Amino acid sequence: MGEEEKVFKDPVHGYIYVRDPLIWDLINTREVQRLRRIRQLGLTYLTYPGGEHSRFSHVLGVYEVIRQALGAFRRNRYPWPHEWDRLTMAAGLLHDVGHGPFSHATEDLTGGHHEAWTERIILDPATEVHQVLRRVAPEFPGQVADVIGKRFGNPLVVSLVSGQLDADRLDYLMRDSLFTGVDYGQFDLARILRVIRPLGDRLVVKRTGLHTVEAYLLARYFMYWQVYYHPVCRAAEVLLHKLLLRARDLLAGGRPPALPHPALGPWLQGEVGLEDYLELDDYVLFTAFALWRREADPVLADLAGRLLDRRLFAYYDYHPRSPRAFGEIEALVAEAGFDPRYYCDVDQTSGIYYDYYLGGEAGAGENGQPLFLWSEEDGLVEMSRLSKPINGVARESLVEARLYVPREIGGHPRLGPLVADLARGR
Amino acid sequence: MGEEEKVFKDPVHGYIYVRDPLIWDLINTREVQRLRRIRQLGLTYLTYPGGEHSRFSHVLGVYEVIRQALGAFRRNRYPWPHEWDRLTMAAGLLHDVGHGPFSHATEDLTGGHHEAWTERIILDPATEVHQVLRRVAPEFPGQVADVIGKRFGNPLVVSLVSGQLDADRLDYLMRDSLFTGVDYGQFDLARILRVIRPLGDRLVVKRTGLHTVEAYLLARYFMYWQVYYHPVCRAAEVLLHKLLLRARDLLAGGRPPALPHPALGPWLQGEVGLEDYLELDDYVLFTAFALWRREADPVLADLAGRLLDRRLFAYYDYHPRSPRAFGEIEALVAEAGFDPRYYCDVDQTSGIYYDYYLGGEAGAGENGQPLFLWSEEDGLVEMSRLSKPINGVARESLVEARLYVPREIGGHPRLGPLVADLARGR
Amino acid sequence: MGEEEKVFKDPVHGYIYVRDPLIWDLINTREVQRLRRIRQLGLTYLTYPGGEHSRFSHVLGVYEVIRQALGAFRRNRYPWPHEWDRLTMAAGLLHDVGHGPFSHATEDLTGGHHEAWTERIILDPATEVHQVLRRVAPEFPGQVADVIGKRFGNPLVVSLVSGQLDADRLDYLMRDSLFTGVDYGQFDLARILRVIRPLGDRLVVKRTGLHTVEAYLLARYFMYWQVYYHPVCRAAEVLLHKLLLRARDLLAGGRPPALPHPALGPWLQGEVGLEDYLELDDYVLFTAFALWRREADPVLADLAGRLLDRRLFAYYDYHPRSPRAFGEIEALVAEAGFDPRYYCDVDQTSGIYYDYYLGGEAGAGENGQPLFLWSEEDGLVEMSRLSKPINGVARESLVEARLYVPREIGGHPRLGPLVADLARGR
Amino acid sequence: MGEEEKVFKDPVHGYIYVRDPLIWDLINTREVQRLRRIRQLGLTYLTYPGGEHSRFSHVLGVYEVIRQALGAFRRNRYPWPHEWDRLTMAAGLLHDVGHGPFSHATEDLTGGHHEAWTERIILDPATEVHQVLRRVAPEFPGQVADVIGKRFGNPLVVSLVSGQLDADRLDYLMRDSLFTGVDYGQFDLARILRVIRPLGDRLVVKRTGLHTVEAYLLARYFMYWQVYYHPVCRAAEVLLHKLLLRARDLLAGGRPPALPHPALGPWLQGEVGLEDYLELDDYVLFTAFALWRREADPVLADLAGRLLDRRLFAYYDYHPRSPRAFGEIEALVAEAGFDPRYYCDVDQTSGIYYDYYLGGEAGAGENGQPLFLWSEEDGLVEMSRLSKPINGVARESLVEARLYVPREIGGHPRLGPLVADLARGR
Repeated sequence: MGEEEKVFKDPVHGYIYVRDPLIWDLINTREVQRLRRIRQLGLTYLTYPGGEHSRFSHVLGVYEVIRQALGAFRRNRYPWPHEWDRLTMAAGLLHDVGHGPFSHATEDLTGGHHEAWTERIILDPATEVHQVLRRVAPEFPGQVADVIGKRFGNPLVVSLVSGQLDADRLDYLMRDSLFTGVDYGQFDLARILRVIRPLGDRLVVKRTGLHTVEAYLLARYFMYWQVYYHPVCRAAEVLLHKLLLRARDLLAGGRPPALPHPALGPWLQGEVGLEDYLELDDYVLFTAFALWRREADPVLADLAGRLLDRRLFAYYDYHPRSPRAFGEIEALVAEAGFDPRYYCDVDQTSGIYYDYYLGGEAGAGENGQPLFLWSEEDGLVEMSRLSKPINGVARESLVEARLYVPREIGGHPRLGPLVADLARGR
Repeated sequence: MGEEEKVFKDPVHGYIYVRDPLIWDLINTREVQRLRRIRQLGLTYLTYPGGEHSRFSHVLGVYEVIRQALGAFRRNRYPWPHEWDRLTMAAGLLHDVGHGPFSHATEDLTGGHHEAWTERIILDPATEVHQVLRRVAPEFPGQVADVIGKRFGNPLVVSLVSGQLDADRLDYLMRDSLFTGVDYGQFDLARILRVIRPLGDRLVVKRTGLHTVEAYLLARYFMYWQVYYHPVCRAAEVLLHKLLLRARDLLAGGRPPALPHPALGPWLQGEVGLEDYLELDDYVLFTAFALWRREADPVLADLAGRLLDRRLFAYYDYHPRSPRAFGEIEALVAEAGFDPRYYCDVDQTSGIYYDYYLGGEAGAGENGQPLFLWSEEDGLVEMSRLSKPINGVARESLVEARLYVPREIGGHPRLGPLVADLARGR
Repeated sequence: MGEEEKVFKDPVHGYIYVRDPLIWDLINTREVQRLRRIRQLGLTYLTYPGGEHSRFSHVLGVYEVIRQALGAFRRNRYPWPHEWDRLTMAAGLLHDVGHGPFSHATEDLTGGHHEAWTERIILDPATEVHQVLRRVAPEFPGQVADVIGKRFGNPLVVSLVSGQLDADRLDYLMRDSLFTGVDYGQFDLARILRVIRPLGDRLVVKRTGLHTVEAYLLARYFMYWQVYYHPVCRAAEVLLHKLLLRARDLLAGGRPPALPHPALGPWLQGEVGLEDYLELDDYVLFTAFALWRREADPVLADLAGRLLDRRLFAYYDYHPRSPRAFGEIEALVAEAGFDPRYYCDVDQTSGIYYDYYLGGEAGAGENGQPLFLWSEEDGLVEMSRLSKPINGVARESLVEARLYVPREIGGHPRLGPLVADLARGR
Repeated sequence: MGEEEKVFKDPVHGYIYVRDPLIWDLINTREVQRLRRIRQLGLTYLTYPGGEHSRFSHVLGVYEVIRQALGAFRRNRYPWPHEWDRLTMAAGLLHDVGHGPFSHATEDLTGGHHEAWTERIILDPATEVHQVLRRVAPEFPGQVADVIGKRFGNPLVVSLVSGQLDADRLDYLMRDSLFTGVDYGQFDLARILRVIRPLGDRLVVKRTGLHTVEAYLLARYFMYWQVYYHPVCRAAEVLLHKLLLRARDLLAGGRPPALPHPALGPWLQGEVGLEDYLELDDYVLFTAFALWRREADPVLADLAGRLLDRRLFAYYDYHPRSPRAFGEIEALVAEAGFDPRYYCDVDQTSGIYYDYYLGGEAGAGENGQPLFLWSEEDGLVEMSRLSKPINGVARESLVEARLYVPREIGGHPRLGPLVADLARGR
């Protein structure tokens, strides 16, 4: 690279600056370049046409946010462990390197979680990422994996990569907002980076930054409802899941459909190796869908065509009074001539990856991790105790569900109203 | 659709409004939905990571610009043939429907031009697009094809779809600029639509709009040099071309590589039918590249790996004094162990699709079509006679060329300097 | 005006379009042009240097929002009383025409409220505004005054000028946000105008617009705390109030200071006539301050210098346990050598003009007016019952206060801590 | 200031950061705070309502651009004289401190140029600015004055404050563009700061920055024609000039009009002292206009009313064939009952402060200073030799003129056409 800084033009941050050759070399590895072929938001572009950006631009953005945060900490002479700066930047850049195609939608089906793949890619001596990391020090790959896996000894380093104010969320909210055109997701990143500071083992927010962080947490709230849990976005994910489920079932049943790439079969059956895994991307899957549309199996062909031509399922709010309802709905779906196993689903908020701030000092699970404001006078105070709108949001239960069935059933003069009534618990 | 207007969120235009059920139905055809799987800028995202948008969002944008222009003409009571409004909007939406994967890079190789495919899709009774159009009137598909093919009787209708101020360019400049992050491409679309007006058979610009149109033409100039003809963007196209050339040659030579989709072989050999053509997209091609990287043929495997991992060719300005130079460069490439047929190319401005305004009242070829300003006092005056910066740009000859060879040769201590010297005509 | 539409460039709305000659003529009256000399946000530019915009650009913006809303209602064929469109646009343009210099800060002192001045300007036959309005019909000026005064028979017309979703707030939030640079105040105006609709006598929001209106209400919340009730912005208003109070007291005491304009004395004493009132603006006041800084009266000269050179008072949160506290603070201020009448003040939220949504179906006073969401299924539901963040905000009591004293006292080694302790109720 | 950095919110740069207490103290001087009361663009807001920003926000912006540039030079380890950083920043902040109200329009009339006032303010021991500067070192005020006056020994320091790529222009183009809403003035400041570098005594542009600098120079071109030399903006300046001319003539003739501030008379007659000068601002002048409108002198009262109510003169392109024309126009103006000395003027491009790049290696006068691009291979090349659009612009002669007369004459059935014909040289 020589001594000159490298620059990427980026619609979110303006420019992304790379001065450390380690970062430059990591970006140019085969495993990171592969993220160019995996979209950040899966099938969301079927709802928001602009949301076509890849995980590659996101991981550059995460790196850039960390770089800027570290610069702000240094400028303000905060007690930050700057000996770990390269480690933090590398971990930020690599935290998503294990994502497969449509990860959030396919992980349960394929049995492999992207976090586990990320660690494998970093630790396996055969990957280019590992080889670049190892050049720093033999223990460096392990340290990067530890930061991403939240096992690293210094919790401040971890918090900048995974936490209520991590670079991951700071980048993807802005990015997803810009590309989808859903403006509610914008917030003042420059000021966020000025109001966060380390306090002991924790990243906290200066009390003067209250409104800045409110705006960021509300951006999460809006993006959750307007994008991540948008009913039409979820409809596409449900359809994708059903299509892959059918393919897997055919494979398991000894009637394998055409597969455009040898890695695809093992992946669907949860038996894929690392080398094969790294050849999978959105492209291979969509090529499979194009082949499957021509397959003899009517369910597979039909579901593939629906996805390719964007004929998504219809949805209903779903408030089940009793387990009876879903069984009755399945019966109606079957009566309409559709196999309910592939043409009927309930999608629950709890099933999706994204969330928003659910405060409370105690916390509950992953997301319950509290966010603290700090002032000389009052010390640490949990966010939702100081902010009225966040207090409103944080009391939200987040339990919601929607029923998905083919649009044909929703439009059926007799079955449609029945399904709708049952869904609403009437 | 009922009576309610449909709306798409769009980062360029804010919202795209659809009120006419014809437009809604066209958007939902299989052939238009397919454009979601073809990127607007081919491999440009390898240079500008944000430039990942598809042709689908562009064609919606073209439709929207036409809708707004027609509204402005109506509001100002200009003598516009409003009886053709539906036709114009449909033609704008469909003008790019024939694009295949990486069209501009692959058309010469595959022998099929997207304009021809567009007309076939519109006219073939088997397509959904044709069926939707035909519902308007039996002659309607033909009229749409005529507008796109510039044969339609009313030149004003044609000019809004193809011309110096057409909706196509107005949308793609703004869109490509936004997504790549190259801000120079922005201009004031609202005001452009206020200063253009029909005059007889022509679309002209009111004299008061001089600076507005200057800014638009300069946006074209900037996007040309910063994006469309950017040396690294072109490097990716050159590599893609070489890779497909090798695959075609192997096919022709009876040593066919693995092909993930049955339509791919015929397409590469220039013999694909319409139905097959419609199954091809960026996804199928990239899946092929993934397979080819594993092929035994060393050239195919190597070129595929270079493209997938973004190891692009190096480039040199190329001012050939004599035909001798290229032959000598080829010899040096061969000496370095690379087959020059697949590892050496000259890329010329004349070979790319995009252009910018090359004024002159006479005009020269496609791009020479002059753009006129109009005022009551002075009548029609050609743009470059009134605008100093455009006059500067318009005198540009646009003849440039670059030499591409593998980076390894550029770095070769002996061959590199030789290649560079020859390229520069020394 | 002829038949051509007039256009203003505007950083908020892009362009402001004027097609109706009535609106054009109103804009060009002396009384509306005078608003160019009165800043929208008073002294806020002493805190946010960009916030220097005038009421003139705001009233153009209010007109434009109404124009766009009426267009949306017409396009959607909503049951809107379009016979009142000109009236509504004129009322929107004129609703602030009665504002004097630094209105919100000076109204209590001068005894004249801008609403009353607005009606006088519209109804007085001597004003250009009245003469232009009268050309429409003899009763037209009275109707405009009735709409602004909320007495007009059709509540829908009134609601677009004054109400929870009125054009006034929609414009000033966006405008104040843009000019101050406080981004939190941005929301999606285009979509707001698409989700509001008349329902009987009311302007309501379609249920699908829930998040859009949430974002708008949160913008109000943020702008309230970050701009309108910002402690430093309020410090400037407090200082201005004290300065004018001193000038009035000197006048009343027979020791009149120099006055650069004959209208200023009567205005300060609450006795100004309409013609004189219309000659007052920010310019005349600041010229008075420049003269007063040279006056013999030490209090007047000192306060004028503080304002001109931006040496504002210091502030403390003020939670009075007992009425005792303020008396003790006044005593300390006097001990420091400052007359407490002019150098000590408590500023309360209830004293400022702006507010944010304080929901509740019952409502309480001006701001209690509830905002309703509507869906076919659930009918009307009050906003804070559907929105968690708004529910959080709406329960806020809005009772806050701050103590202001000269910075010198805050820095006094003995008095400063005493004042601070008393202010905080210790 | 303590150790914490101070921050201003700014719509152009996002934030303006102040870390050096010297800068903070300079900002808080009376003389710099006074710039809050002088608009950057004089009366331009009568044409572009948003253009109401003050010189204060501009000088903060100039400081910020210099701060960023110095940071970029340091990061890239360019051979820059960093020992002068404080000096450069102080000079940038203070370079406009001598501006009086409507400087560009009033300087010829009052005989005092803002550059001279700037130096006096910096050098006079009585000013707060001087006292703050002197605290650094006794020679520091003189050095600051030398940088601003282009006499300082190090030309690099001077070039960042005054030169083809100075911080002054970089800020005001962006700022004027944002506030007026004339988008053509935007360019990529971050990248400009990355492509400029010192080379010997000069600030040059890296060849790779060609298009970035083209865009900046074209922004100057567009802002010149759309804002600075806009015919309606100039109409307001012409009117202002005539009004002040009349007031001065009345003073000289022993019939002084009412003057709201004692400094105004001396200023108009070119005899004002520094202390008085510092009390003058836009506010005092507009208060004078309000008084003058009530004066007995019909010319003064009429011109003041025209300015306050925005009834500007009409304009014609003016291409004088012979000196005869203007005399004949004056005669016609007199025939219409207007004193031509106050109601008729020719405004020439050469008379305005702003300009744009007029290339040429030789250069001609102030603006002829050439701008160089640099590359290892080709060394220094003057801008217009490399850039086609800039070459187009740079050949522009910039000699234009417009005739201004009262709108009443333009509308006169007999005189109007005569004036128009003469103006156009017919």
